[in-house]
Amino acid sequence: MTDGCYAALETADQLEAALREIGAERYHILHPFHRLLHTGRLDQGQVQAWALNRYYYQSRIPMKDAALVSRCEDRELRREWLVRVLDHDGIGDQEGGIMRWLRLCEGVGLDPAYVRSEAGILPATKFAVDAYVRFVRDRPLLEAIASSLTELFAPKIHEERIPGLLQHYPFVSEEMVAYFRRRLDQAPRDAGFALAYVREHADTPEKRQAVAEALIFKCDVLWAQLDALHHAYVLAGGVPVGAFVPQGGELGRAAA
Amino acid sequence: MTDGCYAALETADQLEAALREIGAERYHILHPFHRLLHTGRLDQGQVQAWALNRYYYQSRIPMKDAALVSRCEDRELRREWLVRVLDHDGIGDQEGGIMRWLRLCEGVGLDPAYVRSEAGILPATKFAVDAYVRFVRDRPLLEAIASSLTELFAPKIHEERIPGLLQHYPFVSEEMVAYFRRRLDQAPRDAGFALAYVREHADTPEKRQAVAEALIFKCDVLWAQLDALHHAYVLAGGVPVGAFVPQGGELGRAAA
Repeated sequence: MTDGCYAALETADQLEAALREIGAERYHILHPFHRLLHTGRLDQGQVQAWALNRYYYQSRIPMKDAALVSRCEDRELRREWLVRVLDHDGIGDQEGGIMRWLRLCEGVGLDPAYVRSEAGILPATKFAVDAYVRFVRDRPLLEAIASSLTELFAPKIHEERIPGLLQHYPFVSEEMVAYFRRRLDQAPRDAGFALAYVREHADTPEKRQAVAEALIFKCDVLWAQLDALHHAYVLAGGVPVGAFVPQGGELGRAAA
Repeated sequence: MTDGCYAALETADQLEAALREIGAERYHILHPFHRLLHTGRLDQGQVQAWALNRYYYQSRIPMKDAALVSRCEDRELRREWLVRVLDHDGIGDQEGGIMRWLRLCEGVGLDPAYVRSEAGILPATKFAVDAYVRFVRDRPLLEAIASSLTELFAPKIHEERIPGLLQHYPFVSEEMVAYFRRRLDQAPRDAGFALAYVREHADTPEKRQAVAEALIFKCDVLWAQLDALHHAYVLAGGVPVGAFVPQGGELGRAAA
């Protein structure tokens, strides 16, 4: 099934099984960079590169969710989906996920103003993330919703990441992982809604195939971001001109 | 200045003066249909046609505002603008403006399910409203924001409309005008933000001209909706096939 073709997508149950199989094969929890991150084998500069580039993804999520809302003629669906924008941007006194992510960035030693400037983001990160926003803006609504289904697999990565970061990196504090703790509640709620939506609205084999492909696309978006980090900051593939360069002198190796 | 050209748009003050002049010349408070509506010279079927068609506009406003949010890379601007979506769609226990509008529709004797089906909307209403959504989706962000500036003139129309509807139409109750009362607070807040934004960000004569033209465009969007109503339901221009036909037998003339 790694070719993206499914023997049978005749029912909603078969679709859900296919989606879970896609996650088991392609979700970025499996990426070598995450294995390194979660087991304490990155130095502080590499963790900084991860937090910095992931900020770009975070910063675009409310834009992609607002794009989805802007396409919904159904008020109930808009009200449901709008909560995602609020989760990330916050409203009133609630700060939202992006501010929590910026605190993580600051905690690992990055200047928040530098992070927000987006100056050091890898071009490959931008290409992947921008492709995701465009996908949600342009593709059929069913596929746009389906592309959020990586959240089905998010709790597992957060459960692995929170203790992994806290245990292995002396510069990571409890406050800094607040983003992930919050997502442990938010992601299953959101994923449950989106899964029920595609189960109901993908009512032909062709639509179920399109839903599966949307999830594969999204897995590719997440994977490509880690490939770019892995290449530039771990495998000595070289940091593209203009992208973030860790200040080696200031950074020690993480505790092993 | 009715030709849309301005002698001088060298400063923010000149821009603001031009915007207020556009409103004074083009805002739909001046439209004959509104004069008839607010002075009690429409029958119930004509008021129904107005409420029904205006529902389509209401129903698309959160989509257009979400489209604007989806284009903002600035989190603060997104947080500011997102409140408009919440105002219209509501969130959690808050019902929002669309539900208040549906109560108005029901109050004037329309079946809310029929209203929500959008079956009887005049095609010209849809064309005008859809053009507005596309404008906000596609034009430069400055112009998208500027197109909201008709809210500068909204309090005056609501102040005229609320007593006008209550006084002249026996089928209009206090609860039914809740939408307009709420907008008396919301519109000035929103317009104040948008006006400050264009004053600051339209920093060349060309951009100020673009802002002025965006407001003219929006005035045209509102005006065209009333032209369509006026033609179909007042001047006996004929109701297009498929559009709402008032049930004359059930409807009395409004009290004069």
